[in-house]
Formats: sequence, structure tokens, C-alpha cells
Amino acid sequence: MASTFKPTTIEEMETDNARLRETACAVCAETYEDRVKAQTPHCKFGEEGICCKNCSMGPCRITPKAPRGICGADAHAIAARNYVRSIAAGTSSHSDHAREILHVLKSSSPDGNYQVRDEVKLIKLATEWGVKTEGRDIYDIAHDVADVGLLEFGKPDGFQLFTRRATEERQKLWEKEGIQPRAIDREVVTAMHMTHMGNSSDAEALVRQGLRMSLANGWGGSMIGTEITDILFGTPTVWTTEGNLGVLEEDYVNVVVHGHDPAFSEMLVTACEDRELVEYARSKGAKGINVVGLCCTANEVAMRHGVRMAGNFLQQENVVLTGAVEMMCVDIQCIFPALATLTQCFHTKFITSSPIARIPGSEYVEFHPETAFQQAKDLVRAAIDNYQNRDQSKVYIPSTKQTATVGYPTEQIISHLDNVTNSHIEELGTYKPVIDAIRAGVLRGAVAIVGCNNPRVRPDYSHMEIMKELIANDILIVATGCAAQMATKAGLLNKESKILCGDGLKRVCELVDIPPVLHMGACVDISRMMLLATGIAKDWGVDITEIPVVGCAPEWMSEKAVSIANYVVSTGLDVYLGIEPQVTGSSQMMELITEGTRKITGAGYIINKDPHELVKSIIEGIEAKRTALGI
Amino acid sequence: MASTFKPTTIEEMETDNARLRETACAVCAETYEDRVKAQTPHCKFGEEGICCKNCSMGPCRITPKAPRGICGADAHAIAARNYVRSIAAGTSSHSDHAREILHVLKSSSPDGNYQVRDEVKLIKLATEWGVKTEGRDIYDIAHDVADVGLLEFGKPDGFQLFTRRATEERQKLWEKEGIQPRAIDREVVTAMHMTHMGNSSDAEALVRQGLRMSLANGWGGSMIGTEITDILFGTPTVWTTEGNLGVLEEDYVNVVVHGHDPAFSEMLVTACEDRELVEYARSKGAKGINVVGLCCTANEVAMRHGVRMAGNFLQQENVVLTGAVEMMCVDIQCIFPALATLTQCFHTKFITSSPIARIPGSEYVEFHPETAFQQAKDLVRAAIDNYQNRDQSKVYIPSTKQTATVGYPTEQIISHLDNVTNSHIEELGTYKPVIDAIRAGVLRGAVAIVGCNNPRVRPDYSHMEIMKELIANDILIVATGCAAQMATKAGLLNKESKILCGDGLKRVCELVDIPPVLHMGACVDISRMMLLATGIAKDWGVDITEIPVVGCAPEWMSEKAVSIANYVVSTGLDVYLGIEPQVTGSSQMMELITEGTRKITGAGYIINKDPHELVKSIIEGIEAKRTALGI
Repeated sequence: MASTFKPTTIEEMETDNARLRETACAVCAETYEDRVKAQTPHCKFGEEGICCKNCSMGPCRITPKAPRGICGADAHAIAARNYVRSIAAGTSSHSDHAREILHVLKSSSPDGNYQVRDEVKLIKLATEWGVKTEGRDIYDIAHDVADVGLLEFGKPDGFQLFTRRATEERQKLWEKEGIQPRAIDREVVTAMHMTHMGNSSDAEALVRQGLRMSLANGWGGSMIGTEITDILFGTPTVWTTEGNLGVLEEDYVNVVVHGHDPAFSEMLVTACEDRELVEYARSKGAKGINVVGLCCTANEVAMRHGVRMAGNFLQQENVVLTGAVEMMCVDIQCIFPALATLTQCFHTKFITSSPIARIPGSEYVEFHPETAFQQAKDLVRAAIDNYQNRDQSKVYIPSTKQTATVGYPTEQIISHLDNVTNSHIEELGTYKPVIDAIRAGVLRGAVAIVGCNNPRVRPDYSHMEIMKELIANDILIVATGCAAQMATKAGLLNKESKILCGDGLKRVCELVDIPPVLHMGACVDISRMMLLATGIAKDWGVDITEIPVVGCAPEWMSEKAVSIANYVVSTGLDVYLGIEPQVTGSSQMMELITEGTRKITGAGYIINKDPHELVKSIIEGIEAKRTALGI
Repeated sequence: MASTFKPTTIEEMETDNARLRETACAVCAETYEDRVKAQTPHCKFGEEGICCKNCSMGPCRITPKAPRGICGADAHAIAARNYVRSIAAGTSSHSDHAREILHVLKSSSPDGNYQVRDEVKLIKLATEWGVKTEGRDIYDIAHDVADVGLLEFGKPDGFQLFTRRATEERQKLWEKEGIQPRAIDREVVTAMHMTHMGNSSDAEALVRQGLRMSLANGWGGSMIGTEITDILFGTPTVWTTEGNLGVLEEDYVNVVVHGHDPAFSEMLVTACEDRELVEYARSKGAKGINVVGLCCTANEVAMRHGVRMAGNFLQQENVVLTGAVEMMCVDIQCIFPALATLTQCFHTKFITSSPIARIPGSEYVEFHPETAFQQAKDLVRAAIDNYQNRDQSKVYIPSTKQTATVGYPTEQIISHLDNVTNSHIEELGTYKPVIDAIRAGVLRGAVAIVGCNNPRVRPDYSHMEIMKELIANDILIVATGCAAQMATKAGLLNKESKILCGDGLKRVCELVDIPPVLHMGACVDISRMMLLATGIAKDWGVDITEIPVVGCAPEWMSEKAVSIANYVVSTGLDVYLGIEPQVTGSSQMMELITEGTRKITGAGYIINKDPHELVKSIIEGIEAKRTALGI
């Protein structure tokens, strides 16, 4: 049967968007596009990173006539301090999310709201961390593992335990360069201290602390977050699901989960499947309950339950604008405060659940592990009760959606590779098949595409152009976060999208039975990518900087992304950025982030706002790595 | 004999400053005054706190036409986030300083560079913290105490141990309001997380986290810093010394210690007293070595060794401009990066010593506890060698200086009060004599005057006017940091300055043998003031908000000051500010910091840029508290 697959174009996405903007206009609501307009042009000093607000003598701004702030800090010092503070906020966010998950693990019990779902992973981690397992109750082990994890945030001595997972070369390099990450929280506090008035004004010293702190995120907080989430909610497996606004259903009670920390959304998803509540929804005239995800919470529940994904960061207002959402439940990070006013233009209930993300105009239901499931059921019941308040005159759900195969953590990748390995003559459980494919040139390399979308550029366009060009050039993509969601919307997580690939990648996709873009999870799961690259390097027997694998964030927006970019560079992988870090006002900083870090970690940023030029340089970069390897 | 005492006026200070500005002009150096000029006018958005740089969609600025940032954050959310990040940086700075001191304690040994100087205080703290003391070696106890202290930064559970020192009412209130401080670093990371894009936009929630985090500073990091510094270097005692630029000596090798963490400066002071080095200085034609302090390092070494104080924050360039400084050794915080270029106009060697404060153009000698004394001696030798390079044509040392009696930690205050207590009929070791004096109206109350100076206002002028007015109105002053240094320069730490007091305070000064302004230490020592106020409240038997004691920071500048102001308010004491916090663009924030916190902690800010109006409101505030107490 011939494939009926057709990728969704940017123009099609933009048509849906334009239609929903009409709804916004009709209900007198504003959207981010209106606010972008009002905020344009942006302040040049802020954009270039040369405005300092770190003491009340200022603010100070660097100009040719005022080359130094009142204290004497120059453009380099100011841009570096601002940059490091971004990394501090990003590191804090991902890591604090992990801490919350550890507390949930600590509260897990056989008859409580949270259980251990992946005992094998728990035992493996317990063994890695030196927690006794033999003959012990699984929950005793879980609680001890939680304790070890919690100490990673605040232990007075020693380095992040997970750094031992890195290649030996990396570990030695981090030690030699003095960027081995200590306790996660300490690295943040050190950075905040260094950037306080009258401390460091040396850009390189600040950048080095940025690298160190980011490692505490990538090889600390984020990796802990991923591991513990897998233990609690199950290591993701492959699911076929759907994505884009068309997953919202006209005749169902639509509940949207949005944010990043899956502890709350897991309960909501389970509650939405509760037979009694489904019956209740039917009693209210709906066909059932339709729970869908937004942003990284979508990634989390899609790859563990196959829950459908409504979209990425800049889609959050559109979801509400369909007029068909009974309840939007959010946890933490990347939630527009604008949702409060926007939902008020509709019947949509807007529920906040975390003390970390308090939003005026929302209904605040503070989520507690002990009562989580009951709270979730109460909320879903309220959503059902709200179904009758839907104003049909405001409802318009674009039909656009795509099939998507999601859920490729490293374990799934290995298991897929094992399927194409001849177990009689070759070792199982390695990345050797992919290395062989890269060596043979069937695959040229791989790119980790990550990050948000951002109205500074045409939203999703850079993602789209870069992904298409890469797969056409036999470069496999692993994606997380909003990048993965863009791939979902475009149809690139559909296995049929192999038709867009070059011959080599197409063959790999067919043989291994995968789409050309592998969905690895939420943005916290970029830690999985670090382990993937590490695994490939180890199995290859080369340093991680040598393999033809790079990172790319074409439309990054958040401070988390700045932290991520730094730990990817610290791990030895080049990072291609489509949005300039806000340090352009400092020549020293521009040199440091593009070339300076290369002398420390062997990797750096390559920045280009033009997606076509950026993807060209990615391909060149990958080919250069191949040449250096003699392949 | 009639007193020859004459306070130094602001005008006299300004005359010296103007003369040194002539030197600056002659050597083509710029000073902060030049940079203030170049940076004026400041950006209004920054000044009002309504510019957001927390993601790369922006920066966004709030205007009537653009009332929300791209994400939807309004002026209140943006100002609150910026404010909380300031508290995060301030909390990090004071607390990280304390962490360093704990590491020094951990390295202490009978024959190492650092010893335990106050064993009594160590034993007391060990007992308080549950560390066994009986029959144990003092260094084993010290190392265990260091371990407990270090865990205060990162323990996964529980609250700051020192909060148990607060009045019961305070502890209950903090618990009830959910602002009991957890691990210090965690509170910072929580704040950085909350202020990340897409998290909290609720100003009150953010302000509450600010209060909680600041308590982790005032009743955590800062208090630990003070206690451990006392244990290592001795609890301060009363010394008579001198202050202002006149303490630099024409015929001596002048070594300046500047910054905040005394671990390094203690070694330098000791090295400057080294007989061999003094002889070496003489062999080079100098009369000897003259070590003086600047900023809070000055406070630390003045109250432990009687080292003379050259001045406060905005005096740091003037010290170099005398042309008579052979070496400026800095540790952390409030160090102008401008000193690097300024010292290059003279023979002055500029030495940085901490990885926290790396400054381009300085000579970096990373200080290590194991080698500290040798490093200090090497530096002093280099300073002596540099004496011959002094260019006499550039030398001008103003003769202005004042006698100052310094060193009034709570222990010294109690001991002075014991001296005026009739031990036959009254209890010793209490604040009852001061309470009696306040009850009787001889003293009207007390004001803790703290904080930096700041070119936003006429430097030191507000300090001066407020202090003079308060003591004339029988209000005792306790001072720390740059405020204490201003009092030093003015002569208000001279016991003879009792002539400026009202009759009541004058009588108290004579009876207790104290100056009207009590020097309590560095800015980290504001924790001492919290214990003083707590002690008075406990002995009085009332809640801390009721006693006629308030805080005042007339010319604050740093983010540390924002953290301090918050923990003082959290402790229940009103804070009078002469510089507006940069949240004026948000009516909600202005309400929250002045009135909103009152509903939570019983205290808030009173802000007035006019020092005469500010002091009037302080006196009214104190009188209102008296009235409420029925006295």
C-alpha cells in the first residue's frame, strides 16, 4: 500500500495559528504575537548583555562614551556575569525539578500514590551508588537511593557521582581543568557569589564557573531527574501516538497537562482513565475524557503512556484558543503567566499546582504526594463539571495532527540495535551497529536537536528546515523538548517520514524500524543524550569530542537552554545555536563561547541566525569530524 | 582637661576627596565620580525594576503601551523576580563566605596556619549543635562543628539550626508563615527556579521566598560566618584605634587589606608584624610596615587586632590615590574592578586571592589555608620591595583621621552592662540594664545602622546626618560595615563624641564607658545585631517587633544589603532605607515591601531619600513602639 504520509508544512501550521488568532481577536484576548509587537524593538543593551543591574549604584550600560560601569566593570565583565546568572537559573530549574522527584521517590510506598515502576533500574542505580540491595525491601532501597540523590545537591565534599559515567578522558579533563562539579546547589551559589558586585570581573573565570555549574546540571540534576523519573514512572518505551492541535476532541472533556515535572501529570493521566470519572463525563454528555500534553509534560506522558501531544512552547495559547479546553493543569517552567488572563476569556479552568510556579489569576491546588491521586481525581471531576460551560460559538479545533512514534531512551535505542545484531557473532547491548553504520558512511553522524521555540525567529521554521536538511543528508536526529514536539507536529516522528531521508538513513530507519528523528524525552532528558554520546564514544574507543555527533538548539529561549548548551559543550560536543546568546556586546565573551571553551573542553558554540547556513555548518562540522577520524 | 575632640564633617571629608581627585587628574586616572557622570542618567526601566532579561525572547520592558512582557509577565512579576534574584545573590555572597570560613575551620590544627582561638565559643557552639565535647581534643570538636556547619548549606531536610536561637514567638511565626529557612543553598536555588521563565509571577509568593531565603542568610550563613570567624580568630574585644585616610603613613610600607573574608587578611596582619619582615622593611629605608584595612575586612581586623581603618566602600580608590600604598590585597566582595587600572597609574601592587573574585589586571595569588602564612609573608616581602618604587611626586596623604573605639559584639555589650549591674541584687549576663534605661526613657531606643555608601546620594552624608540626629535624641546606635566605617571617619566611635548626644545617652555612655555608636563588626556581623535584638526581647519578655529597636540602611548599594534588609524584616524589625529598592515600577511590590511584609513578619520598609525626613520617621517609629509598650 502506498504511503499516504504527508509532512505538515510550516505554512499549514501558520494557517492554523492565524485562524486561532481570529478567535483571540473575537474574544478580545491578546497573544504572544501582540506582545512581541509591543515589545519590539528590544533594548539593545539587554540584547547585547551589557547592562548591569547587580547593585543599586546602577543600572549601568556600556557605551563608547561609558566603557565601564560605576564600579569599573567593563562590557566583558558585565556580559559574563549576566551569562553566568542565566546558567545559574537554568541549572537551578532543572535540578530543583529533580529534587522534587527525589522527594516523591522518598514518599513512595507499595500502597501510596507513588510506586516504584522500574525496579531493575532502581537496583542498577542503587548498586552504582553503593546502596545495599540484597535481601532488602524495594522501598527501603528506593528511600536510600533518594537520600543519596538528595545529598548530591548539598554534600559538603566530593563531586557529582554521575560524572563517573563519563568517558575516562572526560573525567580527567574535567579534573585537570578544575570544572568537576561539586554539589549542585553549591555550584549555583558559587556562581551567584562570583557575580555579586565587587567579585569576579574576569570573563574567563566566569565562563569556567558556567561550565562547572552546567555539569552539575547535565551530569547531576538533570541526570538524576531522568533516572528517578524512570524509576518512579517507568523507563519510557516506544509508543505510537499523535501530535498537534488536532488531538483536542470536540466531543470530549479536554484536559491539558502542561509544564515539566511529571509527578502531578502522571496522577492526572491516571485519573482521566478512571472508569468512574469516564462514566461521569459520559453522564455529562461528553464521549469521554481526552487528556493531552503540552510542552515537556507532553513529552513525559507521551513516552510513558502514549498520551497525545497538543504542541510545544509557543502553542500554549493556541490550545486555549480552541475554546475546547475544560481544564489546563500546569506544574512548573515555561508556563506563560498570560494563560491566566487568556483562560478567563473562555470557560477554561487554569490550575497551578506547584509553589515554584504561582501565577495570579489561576486556581491554586497545591499538589502533595500523599494526596496526589485524590487531588487529581477532584480536578478531573471539576473539569467534567466544566464541560457544560463550553461556549460552542468560540470553539474551533484545527484538524491538523500527525502520527508520531515516541519514546527512545538509550535503553530503547540499544534494544533496537540489538534487533539488528547477529547475536552469534556480535556482542549485544552496544552501540556498535550505529558506529558501524557511521563508519561505513551509511549514516554520516547524529545531531541532538533540542530547545524551545522563540518568536525572535519564525517559530518552528528553523527546527523544520534544519531537521529536513539533516535527514536528507543521512544524519540521524535525536530530539527532546520543544524541538521533539516540532518534529511531532511536522510528522518527522512518523516512520513514514523516511521518504524525506537520504538513502543511507532511509535504509537504517527501515532496518532498525525507527523514524529518522528519535524522540528522547523532555528537556531534562538531554542527560540521556549525554549518555548516548558517551556510550557511542566508549564503544568506539575514542574521545567524545571525536565522534561525529553534535548538539543544536535552533530556537532556544530559556535560561535552562543556556545551562544545557554549556553542559553539552563541557561534555565535548559542539553546539550549534540559531539564537545568539546575549553577550554580543563583549568581544571577549563572543570569543570565549565560540573558541575559548574549545581550549578547555574541546567544544564550543557555532552561531548562525540563518537556519540554512546553520545546517550547512552542522553538516560541515560532522564531515570534518569524520575526516579527522579517517572515515 | 577639656576635650579637644572635634568630629570630622562631611565637608572636610569632601575636601580630602577633592584633593585626591586632583591626583587622579594628574595621573590621568578616572574615579567612580567620572563613571557616575558617564552613566547618568540611568536606565529608568532598570531603576524601576521593570526590565526582564530572564529569557532570550526579551529583554522586555514594561510601559503603558506594553504592560506585559512576551510571556505575559507584568510589572509586578518582573520587579518581584528581579528583587528576589538580588536577594539570591546577596544570600549567596554572605553565606558562601561563611562556607569558606567553615572550610578553614576544618583545616585548623595546633601546628597549622589556623588555630582555634576561642575555645569557649567553640565548646558552646558544639554543645548547641549536639557535637560531643567531653574528653575530646579541641580540634576534633572543631572539625565536627565544621561538618555540622557545612551541612547547613545542603542538608536535604530540616531547618536552619540557628533559628532556634530566636524568640519562641518568631520561631512560631516563621513556621506558621512557611518561611522557616531550609538548607541555605537550597533556598537560593528555589528562588532562582521560581524566577525562571514560566514559573512564579505572583509577587507575594516571590516576596515570601525572599523572606525565607534571607532568613537562611541572617539566621544561617551570616550567623555561621560570624560564629566560626570568632572561633578561629577570637571573639572581638574592645580596641582603641583610628580611622580615615590619615592612617596611611608617609614613611612606612603601606599594605592595605580590602574585602570581607578575614582568613587571608588575618595572615597578612600577622605577617606585617613579623619581626624579620619589619627589619627587612627598615633595611629598605622604611620606618616599618603599616597594615591598614578597607571596607569590611577593615572591620574584621580592627576589632580583633586594633588594625587601623582607611575607609569604607567609596574610599577604595582614594586609598590608592594617596600614591603611598605599596600593596592592596583583596579577598572577596565590593572590590572595584577599577582598582586594576587605577593601581597601574601608581607603583601599587594589586593582589587578588580568591577564585570567587578574579579581576583582570590584578596579580592573582590563590590563597590556600595550608600555605596561607607563607603566602602572606611572601606578599609582604614583595610589598616591601615595592617601597622603593613609590613616586614621591604622586604622594599625598590627607592627615584626616579620628580615634575610634571598636569591637562590641554581644559578648562585649553584656560584659559592659555587667559592669553597671549591682551583682548583689541583680542578675548578671542580661540586657536588663539597657532595658531599664529604655523603660526609664534615658535611652529612647536603639537603631542598627548598616550598609554601604552609594553615589546615588551624597556619599556618607545620610549616614552622618542620621547618626548625629539619633544620638542627639538619646537613641543608641549599633553599626556595622561601611556605616560603622563612616562613624569611624566622623569621630562617632570616639568616646568623646558623647558631647553630641542628648543628656540621656550621654549619661549612658559615661556610665557604661562606651561611645554612642557601637561598632559591631562587618556586614556579615549583622547577625550579631539579630542576636542583640533577640536578647533584649527575651529579657524584656515581649515579642521582638515590640521593642523600640529598628534597622536603617541610609546608603545601601549591594545585593547583600537587599538580603540583609529582608532578614531584618523577617526578624520583626522595621528597616528604614535611604535608597529605594529597584521595584518602584510595581505598585504591588511597593505595597508588599512596605506594608505587605508587615502582615507576615510584623515589620516592613520605610523609605525616604531625604535623610532628615528619614531620621524623623525613625524617631517617630521608635516613639510609637514606646507608646505601644506603655512607656
